[in-house]
Amino acid sequence: MMTLTRREFGRLGALGIAARFAPVVQAQDATQRNGRKTGYAIIGLGRIADEFMRGVQLTTNSSITGLVSGHRDKADRIAAQYGVPAGSIYNYDNFDEIVHNPAIDAVYVALPNSMHAEYTIRAARAGKHVLCEKPMCTSVDDADAMIDECKKANVKLMIAYRGYYEPTNLRAVQLIRDGALGQVQAIQSALGFNIAAGEWRLNKKLAGGGPLYDVGIYCLNACRCLTGEEPSQIAAFASTIDRDGRFDEVEENVTWNMKFPSGIMASCATSYGADTAGYFKVYGSKGWLQVDQAFAREGLHLRAELQSARLDEPNPARDPSHFQAEAEHFSHCVQNGLEPKSPGEEGLRDMQCIDQIYRSAGIAS
Amino acid sequence: MMTLTRREFGRLGALGIAARFAPVVQAQDATQRNGRKTGYAIIGLGRIADEFMRGVQLTTNSSITGLVSGHRDKADRIAAQYGVPAGSIYNYDNFDEIVHNPAIDAVYVALPNSMHAEYTIRAARAGKHVLCEKPMCTSVDDADAMIDECKKANVKLMIAYRGYYEPTNLRAVQLIRDGALGQVQAIQSALGFNIAAGEWRLNKKLAGGGPLYDVGIYCLNACRCLTGEEPSQIAAFASTIDRDGRFDEVEENVTWNMKFPSGIMASCATSYGADTAGYFKVYGSKGWLQVDQAFAREGLHLRAELQSARLDEPNPARDPSHFQAEAEHFSHCVQNGLEPKSPGEEGLRDMQCIDQIYRSAGIAS
Repeated sequence: MMTLTRREFGRLGALGIAARFAPVVQAQDATQRNGRKTGYAIIGLGRIADEFMRGVQLTTNSSITGLVSGHRDKADRIAAQYGVPAGSIYNYDNFDEIVHNPAIDAVYVALPNSMHAEYTIRAARAGKHVLCEKPMCTSVDDADAMIDECKKANVKLMIAYRGYYEPTNLRAVQLIRDGALGQVQAIQSALGFNIAAGEWRLNKKLAGGGPLYDVGIYCLNACRCLTGEEPSQIAAFASTIDRDGRFDEVEENVTWNMKFPSGIMASCATSYGADTAGYFKVYGSKGWLQVDQAFAREGLHLRAELQSARLDEPNPARDPSHFQAEAEHFSHCVQNGLEPKSPGEEGLRDMQCIDQIYRSAGIAS
Repeated sequence: MMTLTRREFGRLGALGIAARFAPVVQAQDATQRNGRKTGYAIIGLGRIADEFMRGVQLTTNSSITGLVSGHRDKADRIAAQYGVPAGSIYNYDNFDEIVHNPAIDAVYVALPNSMHAEYTIRAARAGKHVLCEKPMCTSVDDADAMIDECKKANVKLMIAYRGYYEPTNLRAVQLIRDGALGQVQAIQSALGFNIAAGEWRLNKKLAGGGPLYDVGIYCLNACRCLTGEEPSQIAAFASTIDRDGRFDEVEENVTWNMKFPSGIMASCATSYGADTAGYFKVYGSKGWLQVDQAFAREGLHLRAELQSARLDEPNPARDPSHFQAEAEHFSHCVQNGLEPKSPGEEGLRDMQCIDQIYRSAGIAS
């Protein structure tokens, strides 16, 4: 089933159907010239890791060379799919032994949020580069520590914000930078879903908080990327409406406003009680621009009504192409000693905003 | 030109094209049975009054029987169009003489915002019912006084919120009340436009404030109607980005959050510096619903993705059908001694919210 899906994507790529939306191909890398792809150990073998590994398979500069899991059976099954040798399968106890494995250049951290800091730091201490899923962690202090440890170990740290590498998101940013919208005045964005009971995301200790950590962070990050500014003021409310046991530890809804130094303002909403069909909309003096499904893995769609043009640009790229672009970029940075476009500092800034949002909403984070 | 346009609309009506979206026809009114339509004197002959008068022409229960203007030439021209006798044309000095004109049952107040209170009160004292444009006025005190004077004079007071009488807005409210969205969690809404220099709306004395009074009030009112609740908490920011002389007196942008007693949250944006293609979007546990052009006079479009259905409902109704529905309702209330669906108290509640929004944003109102 998965093989077939991978073949499908390969065929799609071969036909060049997605050419317009293909991530920019990096110039041939130094390491690649020596025939060496960046090898990733995957930490936490859940749904997102599965997407990421499928994305890596589509790259020319990355490969899966290690797995870290508490479930050996599952790890063995996945190792067989990706050709990972048994000696490169680790558990959470012997994880630090990756230091002795030269096939592992980097780790991809796809654990529950509260474990990101520990495994990023342990990976850095083992001399491995780190691609860490969002949210970076669950506190500003942890984010600081992760950045420090990666610097100390002289390894790269990138936060896996797909939007920095995804063509429709990049197109929106470019249109704004090119002045197609004139002076941007305001942004609105939302992302949420109606969560099922029992998800680890509802456990405050594992998740750090509610929908803001998990999905609202996309809106927050998008507003920062679209404006190119850091918010100077934040005001937020939180609420829990459904008393069905899901929200005993984390809140159900958060809505917040941000005022940026230029005067641009953003208003965002996130929810674990409602599907929002995630989007962002940017209002400028020369028109507006909207990206629907802006944070989804496929189905992104940009529309704009500008003085200069009316745009309607559906993006045919499908999952896991976002992860392909992300992995390709990080491997390129690792191979060429470059700083990723979404380094730890970007994650830290979002953690600082989340902290402010929770404070404003009266929630102890 | 105007005659032709009216004919066009008449033809559209005759063909029944807009039947699905036609306002509910009121049961035959007591007064109408005596052959008597409700006669309106129009105060302030600007663009919106023009739309309203064209709307009145489409009704079966209303007519234009008086005009109030500081420009006699303009009034004479319009009087000829609508068959208003010269003796029923007033200016702002002799306005109170409408008390002696039995052909005038009601007034439609379409003056700049700060004049709404004075002319509503003078009309009430002349024994005339009052249909007053939004915003109701420019202060909570004025709103209170308007309500009191109309009660004292035993005349009806209705605020001209088109959304209460417009089929697509009503359809959205009904879907929510019927539970099609499940538990509503959040709402987002925006309305704004890039204002031209020199508009009276930029004069704080006439307008009361910036885009919140003029267009943001639609978002505010929609959130109250969609939830059926009054906000318990409000947080707002305001900003002015463009320093081109337009915003010397009023702010350019306002964004605000509202938390309702049930826990539903709303985030809204309004601007005089950006076109927003006004909309509202409602997020519920069973799906979302969006109305584009929600506050426009035509082009309204409802879309929804619900568990039970996927809706895509463009509304073919065109300007001035909203005004027709509004006039029809008020005349029906006048003729049958009923309370309008958007009485003065609805306007007062919005004025109270606007006051809170400005306070939160640090603007003296």
